[in-house]
Amino acid sequence: MKTISETSFYAPPEQIQHTTLSLFGPEAKHAHTVLRCSTGDRMTVVDGCGYEYAVSVGRVLADRVECTILRRRKGPREPTCHITLAQSLCRSPRFDIVVEKTTELGVRTILPVITERSVPRFQKEHVQSRIDRWRKVAMAAMKQSRRSILPTIGPAVSFDEILTFAHDFELSLVASEKERESGLRTLLGPLSTAKRALILVGPEGGFSEREIERTKKAGLLPFSIGPRRLRAETAGIVAVSLLLYERGDLGIR
Amino acid sequence: MKTISETSFYAPPEQIQHTTLSLFGPEAKHAHTVLRCSTGDRMTVVDGCGYEYAVSVGRVLADRVECTILRRRKGPREPTCHITLAQSLCRSPRFDIVVEKTTELGVRTILPVITERSVPRFQKEHVQSRIDRWRKVAMAAMKQSRRSILPTIGPAVSFDEILTFAHDFELSLVASEKERESGLRTLLGPLSTAKRALILVGPEGGFSEREIERTKKAGLLPFSIGPRRLRAETAGIVAVSLLLYERGDLGIR
Repeated sequence: MKTISETSFYAPPEQIQHTTLSLFGPEAKHAHTVLRCSTGDRMTVVDGCGYEYAVSVGRVLADRVECTILRRRKGPREPTCHITLAQSLCRSPRFDIVVEKTTELGVRTILPVITERSVPRFQKEHVQSRIDRWRKVAMAAMKQSRRSILPTIGPAVSFDEILTFAHDFELSLVASEKERESGLRTLLGPLSTAKRALILVGPEGGFSEREIERTKKAGLLPFSIGPRRLRAETAGIVAVSLLLYERGDLGIR
Repeated sequence: MKTISETSFYAPPEQIQHTTLSLFGPEAKHAHTVLRCSTGDRMTVVDGCGYEYAVSVGRVLADRVECTILRRRKGPREPTCHITLAQSLCRSPRFDIVVEKTTELGVRTILPVITERSVPRFQKEHVQSRIDRWRKVAMAAMKQSRRSILPTIGPAVSFDEILTFAHDFELSLVASEKERESGLRTLLGPLSTAKRALILVGPEGGFSEREIERTKKAGLLPFSIGPRRLRAETAGIVAVSLLLYERGDLGIR
């Protein structure tokens, strides 16, 4: 009997009963083929919706691993602030990095945004086919970082759509290389306890003048991420880090 | 006559005279083949040591591009705090990400550190062969982010060596997932104006107990980067971001 602590496993709520749960597909395969789990082993399973389960392995079958639930608890490592990152699309390997890193950091939703200068110029239908891939990246990052919530990835949205969504958030921010006046700490002020926040991050070439005007009109608050020209994916990672940090959700300040 | 603003070019100080400078090798090739520069074009050249030059293109030759210096100034986008990131070695593509992202952010030196749990277990001589590659990554990131300082990469150092180096810094920090008491802001306090700082970031599996004890004895200050288990490269990027932010070097706070 061993305890598998290197990773947690994923079972969505429909695979979880009152006292038992089962791993299927790649999760089962990873458990029995790679980590060679056997009856009696202890491991951690998360449901992707905020709960984690300490389980004891029961039967290890060809297509699934059956487990007995020993303890269920709310995942202890989730940020209190629900961050939605609306990240302008960039080339695939770079968007993979955004998904991986911001999932580790604690983001709740990632929306790929199509802006005037998004590179390459995606059509919505093409993006859809890549979302499955990003979901797999997010799944691996959730498990690696010991989170219990699987971030929602997509759908792809247009710049116009994201501006209408902005009203649903207590706090809507836009990361800006050009911003020279508003820092995040000052900006947050009374909003520093916001529970739901949107961060919009532009493409490599920045937003167009027209887009900048429209974010202002929609009430998004621009905040500075410094004078150096960060790649779009770096800007996304940094913006999420700073907001979590200011919220006290990235360790303590 | 056009102005090339997408990128800056690199010419080390030995290629810079009083009123002229020359680009060679890949820099010259990029200028004439990719960006098709021609006589009279304006562009920006950085020396990697902190200065940037506005130049006018003179002769475009097969092996070099000669330029006339119009203006020289200290690079305006460099952080005031010199950060040395001592990052435990991880697999190559992930270490590439650390080099790229922390160069964009504003790091001055990156030292690959060999710790007990560094994966894979590198020998110093093998690391040396990869440093050239990371220097190229840093060069591209310097130009992309419009910095004027090319970070120093390497040499690879042992854990013991990094502890002896720590005494040379005003501020020596170690990023820690396990730290629950000290946040960066509180920790910095009177040290928040430090001009030279070291950040040590451990490997995927964390430091060994023995290593943790030794960082304490050496006086490194542990600071929390949150309860989620970040990949080593994410930890490096986040630690550098937070220190720059607290120093007022990542935009304004």
